Amino acid sequence: MRPSHRQASQVREVRITRHFTRHAEGSVLIEIGDTHVLCTASVENSVPPFLRGKGQGWVTAEYGMLPRSTHTRSSREAAKGKQSGRTQEIQRLIGRALRAVTNLQVLGERQITLDCDVLQADGGTRCAAITGAWLALNDACTQLLSDGKITANPIADHVAAISVGIHQGLAVVDLDYAEDANCDTDMNVVMTGSGGFVEIQGTAEGDPFTRTQMNQLLDLAEIGIGQLIAQQKATLAS
Amino acid sequence: MRPSHRQASQVREVRITRHFTRHAEGSVLIEIGDTHVLCTASVENSVPPFLRGKGQGWVTAEYGMLPRSTHTRSSREAAKGKQSGRTQEIQRLIGRALRAVTNLQVLGERQITLDCDVLQADGGTRCAAITGAWLALNDACTQLLSDGKITANPIADHVAAISVGIHQGLAVVDLDYAEDANCDTDMNVVMTGSGGFVEIQGTAEGDPFTRTQMNQLLDLAEIGIGQLIAQQKATLAS
Amino acid sequence: MRPSHRQASQVREVRITRHFTRHAEGSVLIEIGDTHVLCTASVENSVPPFLRGKGQGWVTAEYGMLPRSTHTRSSREAAKGKQSGRTQEIQRLIGRALRAVTNLQVLGERQITLDCDVLQADGGTRCAAITGAWLALNDACTQLLSDGKITANPIADHVAAISVGIHQGLAVVDLDYAEDANCDTDMNVVMTGSGGFVEIQGTAEGDPFTRTQMNQLLDLAEIGIGQLIAQQKATLAS
Amino acid sequence: MRPSHRQASQVREVRITRHFTRHAEGSVLIEIGDTHVLCTASVENSVPPFLRGKGQGWVTAEYGMLPRSTHTRSSREAAKGKQSGRTQEIQRLIGRALRAVTNLQVLGERQITLDCDVLQADGGTRCAAITGAWLALNDACTQLLSDGKITANPIADHVAAISVGIHQGLAVVDLDYAEDANCDTDMNVVMTGSGGFVEIQGTAEGDPFTRTQMNQLLDLAEIGIGQLIAQQKATLAS
Amino acid sequence: MRPSHRQASQVREVRITRHFTRHAEGSVLIEIGDTHVLCTASVENSVPPFLRGKGQGWVTAEYGMLPRSTHTRSSREAAKGKQSGRTQEIQRLIGRALRAVTNLQVLGERQITLDCDVLQADGGTRCAAITGAWLALNDACTQLLSDGKITANPIADHVAAISVGIHQGLAVVDLDYAEDANCDTDMNVVMTGSGGFVEIQGTAEGDPFTRTQMNQLLDLAEIGIGQLIAQQKATLAS
Amino acid sequence: MRPSHRQASQVREVRITRHFTRHAEGSVLIEIGDTHVLCTASVENSVPPFLRGKGQGWVTAEYGMLPRSTHTRSSREAAKGKQSGRTQEIQRLIGRALRAVTNLQVLGERQITLDCDVLQADGGTRCAAITGAWLALNDACTQLLSDGKITANPIADHVAAISVGIHQGLAVVDLDYAEDANCDTDMNVVMTGSGGFVEIQGTAEGDPFTRTQMNQLLDLAEIGIGQLIAQQKATLAS
Repeated sequence: MRPSHRQASQVREVRITRHFTRHAEGSVLIEIGDTHVLCTASVENSVPPFLRGKGQGWVTAEYGMLPRSTHTRSSREAAKGKQSGRTQEIQRLIGRALRAVTNLQVLGERQITLDCDVLQADGGTRCAAITGAWLALNDACTQLLSDGKITANPIADHVAAISVGIHQGLAVVDLDYAEDANCDTDMNVVMTGSGGFVEIQGTAEGDPFTRTQMNQLLDLAEIGIGQLIAQQKATLAS
Repeated sequence: MRPSHRQASQVREVRITRHFTRHAEGSVLIEIGDTHVLCTASVENSVPPFLRGKGQGWVTAEYGMLPRSTHTRSSREAAKGKQSGRTQEIQRLIGRALRAVTNLQVLGERQITLDCDVLQADGGTRCAAITGAWLALNDACTQLLSDGKITANPIADHVAAISVGIHQGLAVVDLDYAEDANCDTDMNVVMTGSGGFVEIQGTAEGDPFTRTQMNQLLDLAEIGIGQLIAQQKATLAS
Repeated sequence: MRPSHRQASQVREVRITRHFTRHAEGSVLIEIGDTHVLCTASVENSVPPFLRGKGQGWVTAEYGMLPRSTHTRSSREAAKGKQSGRTQEIQRLIGRALRAVTNLQVLGERQITLDCDVLQADGGTRCAAITGAWLALNDACTQLLSDGKITANPIADHVAAISVGIHQGLAVVDLDYAEDANCDTDMNVVMTGSGGFVEIQGTAEGDPFTRTQMNQLLDLAEIGIGQLIAQQKATLAS
Repeated sequence: MRPSHRQASQVREVRITRHFTRHAEGSVLIEIGDTHVLCTASVENSVPPFLRGKGQGWVTAEYGMLPRSTHTRSSREAAKGKQSGRTQEIQRLIGRALRAVTNLQVLGERQITLDCDVLQADGGTRCAAITGAWLALNDACTQLLSDGKITANPIADHVAAISVGIHQGLAVVDLDYAEDANCDTDMNVVMTGSGGFVEIQGTAEGDPFTRTQMNQLLDLAEIGIGQLIAQQKATLAS
Repeated sequence: MRPSHRQASQVREVRITRHFTRHAEGSVLIEIGDTHVLCTASVENSVPPFLRGKGQGWVTAEYGMLPRSTHTRSSREAAKGKQSGRTQEIQRLIGRALRAVTNLQVLGERQITLDCDVLQADGGTRCAAITGAWLALNDACTQLLSDGKITANPIADHVAAISVGIHQGLAVVDLDYAEDANCDTDMNVVMTGSGGFVEIQGTAEGDPFTRTQMNQLLDLAEIGIGQLIAQQKATLAS
Repeated sequence: MRPSHRQASQVREVRITRHFTRHAEGSVLIEIGDTHVLCTASVENSVPPFLRGKGQGWVTAEYGMLPRSTHTRSSREAAKGKQSGRTQEIQRLIGRALRAVTNLQVLGERQITLDCDVLQADGGTRCAAITGAWLALNDACTQLLSDGKITANPIADHVAAISVGIHQGLAVVDLDYAEDANCDTDMNVVMTGSGGFVEIQGTAEGDPFTRTQMNQLLDLAEIGIGQLIAQQKATLAS
């Protein structure tokens, strides 16, 4: 029995609000159960130094948690003067996931930065960030296209992410904090709309996991990500 | 004529949402026009080193702007590795304002940290932060009281803040970004519910200002803060 | 009775030494009672990035306290690796005050940096810094003019600053450390030679203050600043 | 054809030197082809604050590359004043891998730090670090046991790591730099001696990968890690 | 011919002002020609962690240059966020020199920090700092003795320092900036009142130097330091 | 009697391995007794900003100790976020020593960085670093010459360094850690192949030293450096 009484393959309720704030070229609040992440896309007409003059763009991400998005207050990274290793891992992951479905030549010499800020955390914040950031990125690209700044949409496919894990011996999808804090294996999976894998990061927190368990987890991830991408599509259609 | 077509003494529409996030002891989203600030109060059962063993508590504040709360993206302070001078000035101001109405002996040996994070900015973020943080602080103290951890409410009075300024020769209240970026004099005023001044910070950005203008500005501030405190009371009553 | 037995409106003795050190374009030691601040002006033939090519100059300030300028030793900011929030607030204040009386177009594309270093502290260091830095800035501009590098003096007016406060119920001017550490309200006021207000920063450390007290404090500030500006003029005349 | 003319399932030549330096409780130079990593284990009789008084130990890792271990010189992290996100990701990975096979209760209240410093890099440094660090950790634990400081060996199993990837359409094991810089998918796999998975981190650098490819990669990883663990055993036996 | 027309063995004029500032336990302004250094001694009743409970004290030093003590403005180390290698070298040197003549057991469990801040620089600032700091340290110790906090003076001997160098082929003492910037060999020598060497740091900036030149330089250093120590004694006697 | 039973003038056994790693233009492992330092030379086709366009090159050095090169683990400077004062002193010393024998005009507008990383420490690491770095630098320059990038060898002479000291009243050469930790005077001497002094840094850790002792130490340094330079020559000849 999962603490939330969900089925093993049941994703939490997802709510997506586009245009949540007004200045950003893309601004999406994604709520997956009690995990709430604000994802904004900012377009700049320049690229990082290593790409200058190469005729291509760049997509990057930054991630942060508000100090009291968590059960107990975490110290503010700006006040500590550095981002934790965890924060850096996550923002590198988000950036790689989005670049995997972006045609950087089509984007041209501009950079889009996805800021993913966790307003409230209940497990799965990096996966919610990827799923929401894709929408913000897509909104920003659509606007570039309608403004005539680019001639084709550089977004080649959807991308979304979900966590899966072994909790009390059972393979489950979309772990909330109560499960995440007590699971044996925790895996984050990033997939495209066409079903390819972009990233798999699995860690045995307790006992090592087997090939069989690995396959169960990937089966669940495919189901969960299918639902998230369906939700992305429904949001865009509405 | 003000860019927003408001009257000189007209404060923008104020919307307050308590319990906006679930983990914090107080969590208030305050929206003053297009300025949206999330204020959370976190209670810790310890005090900073300089207060240990003195039988009193502490109230402090931290302030941040999400990178894309502004018209163009500002760089993330956590990534830059330090808080700007402006950020530090503002969080020190918020802390002083709240301590001015808190009985720290009654609070006992605990610290309450107010995190004020700007989700969307359109001028007056520090004033909105003070006004919203007071509500979050009050909610946290009320909960401490109802939990029997303290025997009286340490909050002695309301506190709220508003900006006033000279814009195109006219004294106006509650400047939005369009006014703030073009005003001659910019003043932030913090007052208590009983009408005392806690803080006055006025700066001539262009021409110096006169005693007469100073008095006009304080008159407007008294009006505006009166409205904000009425709104705080209405929110608590609902 | 003030601890120093001064009258409520009595400013401490002021001593000003121009050309205190030899390398700087302006170098002024200002002593206000036991508060001693060395203010140097350094001219550079370039401006910060945000002003390049705009045909105007910039005036900025940095502030520091020698570790043992105070009663007990404070740690050295260079060794700690960062400037405190207080230091940053003060140096931003000094810069704003001086720019308020400088015609940056007349100055041309050069920057003048005012370094204000406290050799000995007894309250009111930021006000002494502004008052002394104006003289150093003026000396540097006068030299630019006599060197034919600029065609008019960019300094449009005098500027000086003084602290006022409510100490044991009494409004007093030019607080020394003994008063500053025990006052209810502390206010720093910056004014021009022609009597305009450039900056007012008042804080209730204890009880909130009233409009009446505010007016008493501003009356005292006008008297005190009048004396400081007279002293600036006498120094230039000698 | 692989650039090195190796078979798809062929691991580079492995050379292991124990007791490479004399001060550390464990000191192992591991050379996998042209990738050379020095792994030292240091025992301290204290644990990090979050574990004090809990009767268990801790195993952690730090990772660094000498500036000229690489084809072109990389800047020294100590001189830049911070560790890169990549460095932090890798040292967190090494620590998790080693803790997965260490009984921290048996270790008692002491910490073992594995320093993994890359003397020469040719791809796969993090995997070599894990494989070599296990030997250094084991040597340190064996010495604690023979010194009578612990009563059982806290090392429950072997652990080793290998990279696998899709290079020019072909699944290959143990990528060198030439392959790593041009592969479509790059995956690091950490396994125990008994064949369980501890960590899987796979990233599509180019096209997304399929379940079929995923399975091919895991098959190769099992072969490669089997060889590395055999080598660890041979080293200990000699 | 030296730029200053001094004889090869002629030290610049030395002026020493004790009690230059009022809060420090020792406060000495030392002026050697146009090099002016303020040296303060601060006594704290605690020692650094590595000395706690060992029944001995510590003497340490910090060094800084005011930004415009130099011909062109140097950036403020507090604003840059770190002390330069040169600053750290110098403050370590000052600390070693003073500890060489201090009986730390007699001092007891307290620390004396010597802050050496250069108000105006014209070469030889580190030597002036050592020579002046000894006086500040001695004043602080004398006061501890007269206050009955220690039972004997922990200062065992005088210590002073001078620069010597090869300038245009000629061995000279007490180099000013014009010489220092153009010399072949630059050597700083620290000696005690009884004529022992505490520190010799010689560097060939141009051609290497010979044993013969080395001996000429040490002869000059002995003469120069003899004069400085005589001056220290005269200052104490007056 | 020396702890190592060496004669007073006996240098420890020296082993030099050129081409220790494969990517660097020069790569030398120097082992002096139990002190092992890896010195690599990296050539870059640019110079630091202060030398741009001046038609000359630059030689600089960086120094580091692996955390467990020492008896007890020292913390990693990259993790602490700054290099210690000692590290900075040493790398500045190495750079000065190498530049003293390099014709920077002949080198042309390129920079050679010598990375000196201590794999195992037993006293005298900075001297070993200088002696080994000269070989790495020379190898890099020889390669530039054979590649036709420069037309003459910019290395004008050998340079090497050795420590000398007073240990239990006896002047000795090449102190190991056991001697270094207990000596009265510690002196590092850098000399050229033609017998000139480049740097002398002597410190009295205990009693001050005399001119007579100074001369004994320099006699020993000349002997020791003579042996090291002979070894450099033998290595190049083999």
